[in-house]
Amino acid sequence: MSDKNLKKQLTTMAIAADKAWKEAQQIEAEVKNKALKDMARTLLLKKSYILKENKKDISLARKNRLPAAFIDRLSLNEKRIKEMSRSLLEIAKLRNPAGEVIKSWKRPNGLRINKVRSPLGVVLIIYESRPNVTSDCIGLCFKTDNSVILRGGSESLNSNIAIYRVLKSVLKNYKIPANLINMVETPSRRAVDILLKLKDHIDLVIPRGGESLIRRVAGISRIPVIKHYKGICHIYVDEDADLNIAEKVCFNAKVQRPATCNAMETMLVHKNVAIRFLPGMIKKFKEAGVQIRGCANTKKIVKGIKSAKEKDYSTEYLDLILSVKVVDSLAEAVEHINFYGSGHSDAIITDNKRVASEFLGKVDSACVYVNASTRFTDGFQFGMGAEMGISTDKLHARGPMSLEELTTYKYMIFGSGQVRE
Amino acid sequence: MSDKNLKKQLTTMAIAADKAWKEAQQIEAEVKNKALKDMARTLLLKKSYILKENKKDISLARKNRLPAAFIDRLSLNEKRIKEMSRSLLEIAKLRNPAGEVIKSWKRPNGLRINKVRSPLGVVLIIYESRPNVTSDCIGLCFKTDNSVILRGGSESLNSNIAIYRVLKSVLKNYKIPANLINMVETPSRRAVDILLKLKDHIDLVIPRGGESLIRRVAGISRIPVIKHYKGICHIYVDEDADLNIAEKVCFNAKVQRPATCNAMETMLVHKNVAIRFLPGMIKKFKEAGVQIRGCANTKKIVKGIKSAKEKDYSTEYLDLILSVKVVDSLAEAVEHINFYGSGHSDAIITDNKRVASEFLGKVDSACVYVNASTRFTDGFQFGMGAEMGISTDKLHARGPMSLEELTTYKYMIFGSGQVRE
Repeated sequence: MSDKNLKKQLTTMAIAADKAWKEAQQIEAEVKNKALKDMARTLLLKKSYILKENKKDISLARKNRLPAAFIDRLSLNEKRIKEMSRSLLEIAKLRNPAGEVIKSWKRPNGLRINKVRSPLGVVLIIYESRPNVTSDCIGLCFKTDNSVILRGGSESLNSNIAIYRVLKSVLKNYKIPANLINMVETPSRRAVDILLKLKDHIDLVIPRGGESLIRRVAGISRIPVIKHYKGICHIYVDEDADLNIAEKVCFNAKVQRPATCNAMETMLVHKNVAIRFLPGMIKKFKEAGVQIRGCANTKKIVKGIKSAKEKDYSTEYLDLILSVKVVDSLAEAVEHINFYGSGHSDAIITDNKRVASEFLGKVDSACVYVNASTRFTDGFQFGMGAEMGISTDKLHARGPMSLEELTTYKYMIFGSGQVRE
Repeated sequence: MSDKNLKKQLTTMAIAADKAWKEAQQIEAEVKNKALKDMARTLLLKKSYILKENKKDISLARKNRLPAAFIDRLSLNEKRIKEMSRSLLEIAKLRNPAGEVIKSWKRPNGLRINKVRSPLGVVLIIYESRPNVTSDCIGLCFKTDNSVILRGGSESLNSNIAIYRVLKSVLKNYKIPANLINMVETPSRRAVDILLKLKDHIDLVIPRGGESLIRRVAGISRIPVIKHYKGICHIYVDEDADLNIAEKVCFNAKVQRPATCNAMETMLVHKNVAIRFLPGMIKKFKEAGVQIRGCANTKKIVKGIKSAKEKDYSTEYLDLILSVKVVDSLAEAVEHINFYGSGHSDAIITDNKRVASEFLGKVDSACVYVNASTRFTDGFQFGMGAEMGISTDKLHARGPMSLEELTTYKYMIFGSGQVRE
């Protein structure tokens, strides 16, 4: 397709999406929830079609010798389709925050001001090749009265289109505008560049995937982007820590699932407990296959470990590797975290309330923990139901991003002819 | 100063500001409020110094033959300094939203999750030559535990520096970090370009001024910007309107202070009331000196008025000029507003609740009114105390922006050794 035709096609899609969410606000919540449940059901009914399309993607990925982990994320099976379906049912059960009156007050002149949570409008999701993101994002955006435009990775295009078509087909049964749910079906990279300029018709962009994808999108977008960057998470073992808790929590944060963004990458230890704490802790890590990279003082206490280099402290390993650093004070720990961290999740282990409070205030991260594993930073673990990702931005949405974060607000003001004097 | 030295100086300033707000969270609210009241007092005590510096700016502006309205905004006098002082006292009295627990819940595993309103960090304000913005922004950012970096218009540089120095001098009496309050004292334009790249140390940019300033800042900033664009505000007179209320409200919205962003620029009238409503309304407008630009149907009803051109509907007149258009339906009114409007403030005059509700939902603006003048969109009128401006963005802050909008949130999670299974 020529650039001009592609631009025309995508602009038409965005304008239709922009119209659809405004229309959809008149649809009753009950009808939308019924449609969500119907989507969950239809997904199961059409599973052989979806699996057939998914097989096309998988065999192409094999032919192109993509890595096994990549093909695993790409692959669907009966169990995964059931999970996607269950997720839609869960979303149907949650409360829709859009429409909720956040605050309401009356002014002396009689004006009633309602601050009302409202849909954002049109949300563009750009994601890598994980077909389940297609149904999760359709569910979350549909629930919150937004329109969604999906642009998935080209390697999962057949799977994405299949899921998208199955879910969208449900809308007509409920007389819901079809343009609430949209997909860019061309694999062309130019499509993204064009979409990211349509700021008059798209309200928010959420890139889901690796850091390079997110940086690329943020770099060229003229539409606001909520960024889900990496997680360089720390645990600081304070001099007043319960060392049993410290050992248990640090072990969990590193080992339980090291490839996640909320796993610990650097452990900071106060000098006054380093000698008591480090030998046993590091032994336990080594037994679990964790490679340690220590600072000079760590290496004095435990022999035979690799040196941590400056670069290690700003690396998201996503693997069984851990930087360890002995610090002189809480202040040094906080400074290290704010300098090398990514504002994602950081924890302190301490029984000292004053120290804990200072840590919570000064560490500038989305989630700050006292005596618990950073691994809990997650929409489900927080009790928010589904999640769109974990924002490392500070504006609009911070930390686990779910339904509420897919809304904005507007002021609705009710008068009886008031004018300004 | 060389580019390299300027960059070094500004980076040092931003790093110090970033450190200061983290330190300042330990300072008790009472101490900060005392400091705010002291600032208000000191401003009055030092008024002759401030007025002397302001005179330098004024005589330079006269020499450069700047417009009278510009010189008026630039000029200080005893009354204006008193107003600035009173504003600081008001801010001292308001509740600081930072630190407030927005939500708190306990998970089945015993984890306590607090969603806590927190300072944004370092806020950069770029503003045109209105010296009072200096003290307002210092007050609002200081109140919310943020650091502020001020960069005012070069024509008010002497006045800004004087106000800044007077207010900052108060901090040492309370042992509050001086780097909470910062000003770029060089008039060089390059300073702005450098600052807008310091995304590791500055959290938010708020440009205050004309549209061209805001577009320039948004275009080059690598830091999130909250934009306060123009106000193209509409009032739609519905077929079920009380026409007495319609006449009173429309007159107020256009005439009471036409140069403000919340004044009406286009009046839309349902065809079924146009013949009854327009002749009297337009007569009243003409008597008040308002120039009318009407659509073809308006011109049929009232003779001798200018034609509204396409461009008129997207123009912020800020003057006694009004576009008038007859529409066939609510749907046409909503479409017109969403297409030509600026998402600022729009009103409907109607006694029909269903129509009002549809208007409120479908018009995608920060403030939507039923039976009241758009002129109420204002922090003070809303009862928020001081205001930073009126955001036409949809993310983070929408509409009148005050203390709460100068905060983000973070999750503080309290455990007793919880780990993820």
